[in-house]
Amino acid sequence: MKAVVKTRPEPGAELADVDVPTPGPGEVLIKVAATSICGTDVHIYEWNAWAQSRIHLPQILGHELAGFVEEVGPEVHSVSPGDYVSAETHIYCGRCYLCHIGKAHICRNVEILGVDRDGAFAEYIVVPERVVWKNNPSLPPKVASIQEPFGNAVHAVQRAEVAGKRVLIFGDGTIGLMACGVAKALGAHSVWLVGLVEERLELARALGADETVNARMEDPVAKVLRWTGKLGADVVLELAGAAAALTQGLEAVRPGGRLIAFGLPPGEVPLDVPKLVFKEVELVGVVGRRIFGTWEEASRLLSRLDLSPLITHELPLSRFREGFEKLLARQAIKVVLYPGE
Amino acid sequence: MKAVVKTRPEPGAELADVDVPTPGPGEVLIKVAATSICGTDVHIYEWNAWAQSRIHLPQILGHELAGFVEEVGPEVHSVSPGDYVSAETHIYCGRCYLCHIGKAHICRNVEILGVDRDGAFAEYIVVPERVVWKNNPSLPPKVASIQEPFGNAVHAVQRAEVAGKRVLIFGDGTIGLMACGVAKALGAHSVWLVGLVEERLELARALGADETVNARMEDPVAKVLRWTGKLGADVVLELAGAAAALTQGLEAVRPGGRLIAFGLPPGEVPLDVPKLVFKEVELVGVVGRRIFGTWEEASRLLSRLDLSPLITHELPLSRFREGFEKLLARQAIKVVLYPGE
Amino acid sequence: MKAVVKTRPEPGAELADVDVPTPGPGEVLIKVAATSICGTDVHIYEWNAWAQSRIHLPQILGHELAGFVEEVGPEVHSVSPGDYVSAETHIYCGRCYLCHIGKAHICRNVEILGVDRDGAFAEYIVVPERVVWKNNPSLPPKVASIQEPFGNAVHAVQRAEVAGKRVLIFGDGTIGLMACGVAKALGAHSVWLVGLVEERLELARALGADETVNARMEDPVAKVLRWTGKLGADVVLELAGAAAALTQGLEAVRPGGRLIAFGLPPGEVPLDVPKLVFKEVELVGVVGRRIFGTWEEASRLLSRLDLSPLITHELPLSRFREGFEKLLARQAIKVVLYPGE
Amino acid sequence: MKAVVKTRPEPGAELADVDVPTPGPGEVLIKVAATSICGTDVHIYEWNAWAQSRIHLPQILGHELAGFVEEVGPEVHSVSPGDYVSAETHIYCGRCYLCHIGKAHICRNVEILGVDRDGAFAEYIVVPERVVWKNNPSLPPKVASIQEPFGNAVHAVQRAEVAGKRVLIFGDGTIGLMACGVAKALGAHSVWLVGLVEERLELARALGADETVNARMEDPVAKVLRWTGKLGADVVLELAGAAAALTQGLEAVRPGGRLIAFGLPPGEVPLDVPKLVFKEVELVGVVGRRIFGTWEEASRLLSRLDLSPLITHELPLSRFREGFEKLLARQAIKVVLYPGE
Repeated sequence: MKAVVKTRPEPGAELADVDVPTPGPGEVLIKVAATSICGTDVHIYEWNAWAQSRIHLPQILGHELAGFVEEVGPEVHSVSPGDYVSAETHIYCGRCYLCHIGKAHICRNVEILGVDRDGAFAEYIVVPERVVWKNNPSLPPKVASIQEPFGNAVHAVQRAEVAGKRVLIFGDGTIGLMACGVAKALGAHSVWLVGLVEERLELARALGADETVNARMEDPVAKVLRWTGKLGADVVLELAGAAAALTQGLEAVRPGGRLIAFGLPPGEVPLDVPKLVFKEVELVGVVGRRIFGTWEEASRLLSRLDLSPLITHELPLSRFREGFEKLLARQAIKVVLYPGE
Repeated sequence: MKAVVKTRPEPGAELADVDVPTPGPGEVLIKVAATSICGTDVHIYEWNAWAQSRIHLPQILGHELAGFVEEVGPEVHSVSPGDYVSAETHIYCGRCYLCHIGKAHICRNVEILGVDRDGAFAEYIVVPERVVWKNNPSLPPKVASIQEPFGNAVHAVQRAEVAGKRVLIFGDGTIGLMACGVAKALGAHSVWLVGLVEERLELARALGADETVNARMEDPVAKVLRWTGKLGADVVLELAGAAAALTQGLEAVRPGGRLIAFGLPPGEVPLDVPKLVFKEVELVGVVGRRIFGTWEEASRLLSRLDLSPLITHELPLSRFREGFEKLLARQAIKVVLYPGE
Repeated sequence: MKAVVKTRPEPGAELADVDVPTPGPGEVLIKVAATSICGTDVHIYEWNAWAQSRIHLPQILGHELAGFVEEVGPEVHSVSPGDYVSAETHIYCGRCYLCHIGKAHICRNVEILGVDRDGAFAEYIVVPERVVWKNNPSLPPKVASIQEPFGNAVHAVQRAEVAGKRVLIFGDGTIGLMACGVAKALGAHSVWLVGLVEERLELARALGADETVNARMEDPVAKVLRWTGKLGADVVLELAGAAAALTQGLEAVRPGGRLIAFGLPPGEVPLDVPKLVFKEVELVGVVGRRIFGTWEEASRLLSRLDLSPLITHELPLSRFREGFEKLLARQAIKVVLYPGE
Repeated sequence: MKAVVKTRPEPGAELADVDVPTPGPGEVLIKVAATSICGTDVHIYEWNAWAQSRIHLPQILGHELAGFVEEVGPEVHSVSPGDYVSAETHIYCGRCYLCHIGKAHICRNVEILGVDRDGAFAEYIVVPERVVWKNNPSLPPKVASIQEPFGNAVHAVQRAEVAGKRVLIFGDGTIGLMACGVAKALGAHSVWLVGLVEERLELARALGADETVNARMEDPVAKVLRWTGKLGADVVLELAGAAAALTQGLEAVRPGGRLIAFGLPPGEVPLDVPKLVFKEVELVGVVGRRIFGTWEEASRLLSRLDLSPLITHELPLSRFREGFEKLLARQAIKVVLYPGE
């Protein structure tokens, strides 16, 4: 089968012919109908410091997908050939303390699709039965594929507890834009998005943001303090991965408020601890998605939200390079690849 | 009456004769039976940068107290002369958004005893009725006086949610030592205290700590990881005000755990955001005490905990300088002053 | 001044001339612009068993109001003549254990406007400063008057935690209809209302209900189980005060769900405890509104919800009897009375 | 092998020779070292109405156990022969909505050991790998066997949130007695147990209860109101399965408090809904144990609590009838059976 494989310790990847994998006991072979490119894939493609330290070559990339069960290995009971499915990226052990207390998404022994084992940028992928999610048949494959990053947005917004709140979001990337729609659907009183690209701010408003701030042109802290009578936003989500956004978030959040840290700024961020203390702010790290609590919530939300405007590019798998280049140039939001084409 | 007054913009304070204050409408005049020195008082005494920016001279110091109502102004209904009382330090407005949502301790218009208005290092003090707390008659005045910092410890431990948990505490000062007893009383599975002074570590163990670590001699992170099979402590309380403690706390807390920030490290602390994110740690700023929820809790706990070993020095008010000097030399934990002597 | 007074232990009330009250220290005299009739007023008017046991005659009825501060007594600092205000009905003591822990709305020493002291069906009313709420100037008096029952709906929905949930509401009275709008605004995934009167079900749908069930014609439990694949609704609110609704609510809520009890069914309700246990249902009693947390939330929500369709009748105070009779005949939802006319 | 089998639809059970079961894929064969009798077993033994409606004969009884893995079927990865284990009774599906949101203990498709499939009163038992719990090697088998009901007590107390609280427990059976120790260990301020049997009240005090009430001789509600200045207990746990206890619990709990329903009173219980509403009480149904969150907590607590006084009888499996008869006569608390003897 065709697969996008990283074979050499340098930027790039190549389309290779590899064997169709065979599902072992408890495993499921999925024929990939659609797969989408995540920031993690871009890091592996560009071969950044993190990728160099983590990835063992050769590696098939990709972990966001939708497809159809082609074959199940022995001892698979909950899915059958023909089922329309996606998969959770974090293959949890189910046996560690964190899995036991309901936090499988931060499992101590986690294995990650497309990072620790063969990924989804291929015609077929094998995954353990326990990470398979049965899709709502009404979702088109491209939307079912981006359920996984949508789950990030849902999980982050859930942790922020937005109902009735004034919500400030930093980041006009995929997760930030999705979070606008999620926050609005989950009852936020106001949603304000801070970004850098005018077209994306427009998209944010289309997805539900009440106001947007272009941080290149205006000071988001000053704006939020003005909108809130100097009090600050009830909750702030840092989804941009920028040190300045975290610092501004701590300024812009009201006393007793919550600041969600989801983005990954490079290097350490200087934290004004007395400000955090005197304001009694909760700075909450959030990663991944609850397995499968967030998938259930995301599934409901997808009946109310249309994510398709976020899919800016759709390409056959063989043209994956175009997708990566668009993303590196920040000219795309979500890129969906179709292995069957 | 005699009072300890800061009169000049330089280190020190002096015992002065001032008028006994008169309670206005809604105010209460308390004859101070015992008052204790807080770190804030020490900062004003030594005249550090914060004090220089905040304090208007002349200023009577002190905000921890116990005493007896001497006289009440008009429109005071809930206390009467002779009542045995203490007082909440944070005089909240009761009218702002934060007061309205039950967070009066971070009131937007807060006025602080001994900082923004005359304090308790005096024979008499006037406070608004709404911050008066009726003491349990069985508490000796010296213990009733340190209820206020005890409330800090109770509030911090409550926010940590310690029941059944393995708890790591940084700081062998008053709050850290109190927190050992509180955490144990509120059902912590294990309490481990990190400090610097051997006698204080002994005191921590006497107050309930299961284990202590002298950070001058051992690496607290390594110890905790060993005690927890590399998982980390369920919750960590930073009560030392040291940047290193916060950094070590983030290392030592388990994934999905909570890290309480109560201490005030000077300057900014470099924060490893990806660590916070990937571990889904909650870094929670905590200040003051809930008014009066924490006082109710503290009052119950005082029937089970003996705080008197923390009171290392008792002096007449006139010898206040000895108290301050002992504290500056870290030779005292709590110093109680008696205005009546 | 004119006031609606209950003078005799029998059904009815009369319009009487009484003295304009004088505000004492800490009290506020309000000139009533609009006041609305609550079910409690109806119980006093019809002189039911509860009213007979609780009310001391003579009694001025009414507790929902909006008006303008006419005069303030001594020691009132937060409001001034001319301020546009409403008032919390529950005059809390501020000193009991429940007030101390932030539950002033269930204060042990509560005094209720229009029940324990003179009410709002009058040209003027005196209330303690601490229960005065400053209205958003953009709210018309009739809407500002029904903020108080709206607060009931907001508090009940808040306790239900509806964001992302499938919500079943029993009751097509004022609170049930308001709750539809609140639940939708706070992010409910679906809102289903069960009632008895077709016009009110229409109004529910106009206010945000996704579906309605006429319990005279259909079995609400069967419907909900069909809509949820036999699972049940995530949360159920019993706002009808009917024993059958509580029993059906326990059937219709999913395992692990929450059932809010707000209505007051006459007599005891037979409870199937094993069903509650095996389903791990939380049956949560809710009363009043948090003071002033709920008022803050309600105030925000009023910028998004239009409650005016619920006000079916507006009358001069002198025609109060028409309002009561309409309510007794269930021909009205909210009746607003204007003392000034 | 020998096993205690219910073969006929009448009271009693018999010791029979049956085949040693064979572990299929994903299953584990355990050699039972100790097994203990639960109330459910007693109901099946006495053949009450519930048992008649639920049990299909023949049925091997028993679901509380400790033993050693004898053999594992194909595709078992987390345990090996020789491992010292117990098992969760509720075999959850892992695929339904409730399993997905972290509530596997109320799984929609649950299968129960000793009820829906062969139980533990036998020399060997087969269970799915996913319900196997690895025991702490320092626990004796008899204590490891009663971990399962101990988990009920831990889960019920956890839901009550007892830290710092005044706790009233109804029930001097196994779960009530265990709950005394758990509540105390998890930081309850006071623990008061209501029971009927003097020796058990003594045991309650030995396990940590501060006070006990013999409901045959004293009114528990009056006592609790006296102890709390008429306020009521912060939380109440109904672990007796008596209608009167639930009614008294609602009287005895303070406004804003929580009432845990765990016991299963026969028939419906008349509920005073206005009392529940005006007091804003939360009546919370609790069943089973969280899988495996509660097991982790229970495991920690067992290092601090000695449950062996609760094991009043230890018998070889062949003398199971003595154990059942003692329990039916309420002369035993926990009866442990040893298949190997």
